[in-house]
Amino acid sequence: MALKGAGAEEKELENHQGERLVRLSNPNVAAMQEDVLYHFSLSTSSHDLPAMFGDVKFVCVGGSSSRMLTFIKYVATELGLGRTGDEYPNICSGTDRYAMYKVGPVLSVSHGMGIPSIAIMLHELIKLLYHARCTDVTIIRIGTSGGIGLEPGSVVITRQAVDACFKPEFEQIILGKRVVRSTDLDEGLVQELLRCSGDLSEFATVVGNTMCTLDFYEGQGRLDGALCSYTEKDKQDYLRAAHAAGIRNIEMESSVFAAMCSACGLRAAVVCVTLLDRLKGDQISSPHEVLAEYQQRPQRLVGHFIGKSLGRA
Amino acid sequence: MALKGAGAEEKELENHQGERLVRLSNPNVAAMQEDVLYHFSLSTSSHDLPAMFGDVKFVCVGGSSSRMLTFIKYVATELGLGRTGDEYPNICSGTDRYAMYKVGPVLSVSHGMGIPSIAIMLHELIKLLYHARCTDVTIIRIGTSGGIGLEPGSVVITRQAVDACFKPEFEQIILGKRVVRSTDLDEGLVQELLRCSGDLSEFATVVGNTMCTLDFYEGQGRLDGALCSYTEKDKQDYLRAAHAAGIRNIEMESSVFAAMCSACGLRAAVVCVTLLDRLKGDQISSPHEVLAEYQQRPQRLVGHFIGKSLGRA
Repeated sequence: MALKGAGAEEKELENHQGERLVRLSNPNVAAMQEDVLYHFSLSTSSHDLPAMFGDVKFVCVGGSSSRMLTFIKYVATELGLGRTGDEYPNICSGTDRYAMYKVGPVLSVSHGMGIPSIAIMLHELIKLLYHARCTDVTIIRIGTSGGIGLEPGSVVITRQAVDACFKPEFEQIILGKRVVRSTDLDEGLVQELLRCSGDLSEFATVVGNTMCTLDFYEGQGRLDGALCSYTEKDKQDYLRAAHAAGIRNIEMESSVFAAMCSACGLRAAVVCVTLLDRLKGDQISSPHEVLAEYQQRPQRLVGHFIGKSLGRA
Repeated sequence: MALKGAGAEEKELENHQGERLVRLSNPNVAAMQEDVLYHFSLSTSSHDLPAMFGDVKFVCVGGSSSRMLTFIKYVATELGLGRTGDEYPNICSGTDRYAMYKVGPVLSVSHGMGIPSIAIMLHELIKLLYHARCTDVTIIRIGTSGGIGLEPGSVVITRQAVDACFKPEFEQIILGKRVVRSTDLDEGLVQELLRCSGDLSEFATVVGNTMCTLDFYEGQGRLDGALCSYTEKDKQDYLRAAHAAGIRNIEMESSVFAAMCSACGLRAAVVCVTLLDRLKGDQISSPHEVLAEYQQRPQRLVGHFIGKSLGRA
């Protein structure tokens, strides 16, 4: 059985042209007559997913829907994929759960905040790519984060996503039992992205571990939430221990993103800008323009990477 | 120290008029010069929070921003709080993380999907109510859910929020250590809401336990996600055990909602409609109009409750 399973998996990994396929880790979906991707307001019976998405090679995901619209406009212009005056309608306009935009081989999708929100999106996105028979897909999360010991505005490319106990694991409860998955990311892609940042030479970029938490306030040791039962010293001890464990930033989606993409054969990376240095404070109080410019940095880095991959940069 | 703590807490619970105050479980906030509620794009220095929100008595929260706009228009019309043609601008228009609307004493706020997303919103909402010096606030989550053994469209008023192991607990990691909080809700409010449903007599309403999970697919035993490693029988066994434990519906926010509101002195309830019976399937494939009508049911129930509380129903 183990051999048969491994064989079937290898068979699914590549098609006859040697292209890497998106695979599901669920045999049930292939047998379904219709698949409703409820939170996208799309379905295999009402939409021609291969025609709509079959050419997708790069998927970029981020928390905010307006940021993902900005991103698709940016890559369209920067890489000459769109024409002046082109509009990018929201493909998921039938729902307000997520927003999705596309230009050429690039898909841009919002995922809201936190592990559960991005997990729902990824389940449906991976099924969408599977139904559309996409090949050789690279997926990159472009997000915001709190830095540890970095100048605000620095960009972190994630080497390893770790949990709030600094372990490279994603734990979830399935049918009432704990299941632990690894949070591996593509090391080659990390190095490619780092080279792209070198090409640009516009902002500081480091490779480091990223801590993924289930809460923004107590879960990240902030002192300014509605609840807090520890001291400034407790917080500093925790953040310094995180730094010693190689953690350079904290966000709320990377662990499940790494675990799910790895399980389904997607080459994945996480690129986040740091909005503040958590060793120096908790509140995000920089002026709006400064924060807005910071948030463009992962977009510029990943836009350059896509352009280079397409031979346009 | 324990006595002093308890005394301080009691002192904070009521003001001189005997009104119940919103309290924080964090002494640091009172000492802050400015408090930036980052994910609302509001701040104590740029906004007069007591003037904007001081009269709030009812806060309704739900996942979808468009549903929360529908709700504020509905209560405005139904309870005669607004005038024909009134517009309800999004108070959080400086961000796309959450949307917030207000009419008279009613505040309507979206929270996205999942525990982390609603937790960020609640930290900032509870601080907002505290800064605004609100008193006697009732907060109700109006949401959607999957039912267990109920006709689709049934409404569940939550007696107790439980986790994926059926325990009435909310567990989180704070500074790398597990902290468990209780998920108590206001029993009197449950009974008041049940009476309101009886007044309306428009749809089936039950009181039951609500299971709160961190995932919509594997975390709720669905067979149709991108990943699934169990059988239909495993799923049925799990859902039937949940039913035997008094669980009547499954959603993704109730446990942290109950835990945080209880810790901060807010009278809280959870009212969710069930979109499908999970014993009979996983996909939400009812026609759009049917689902849209289902989603109005918690709004009608809670709208009637607010009207009755204000002496208008």
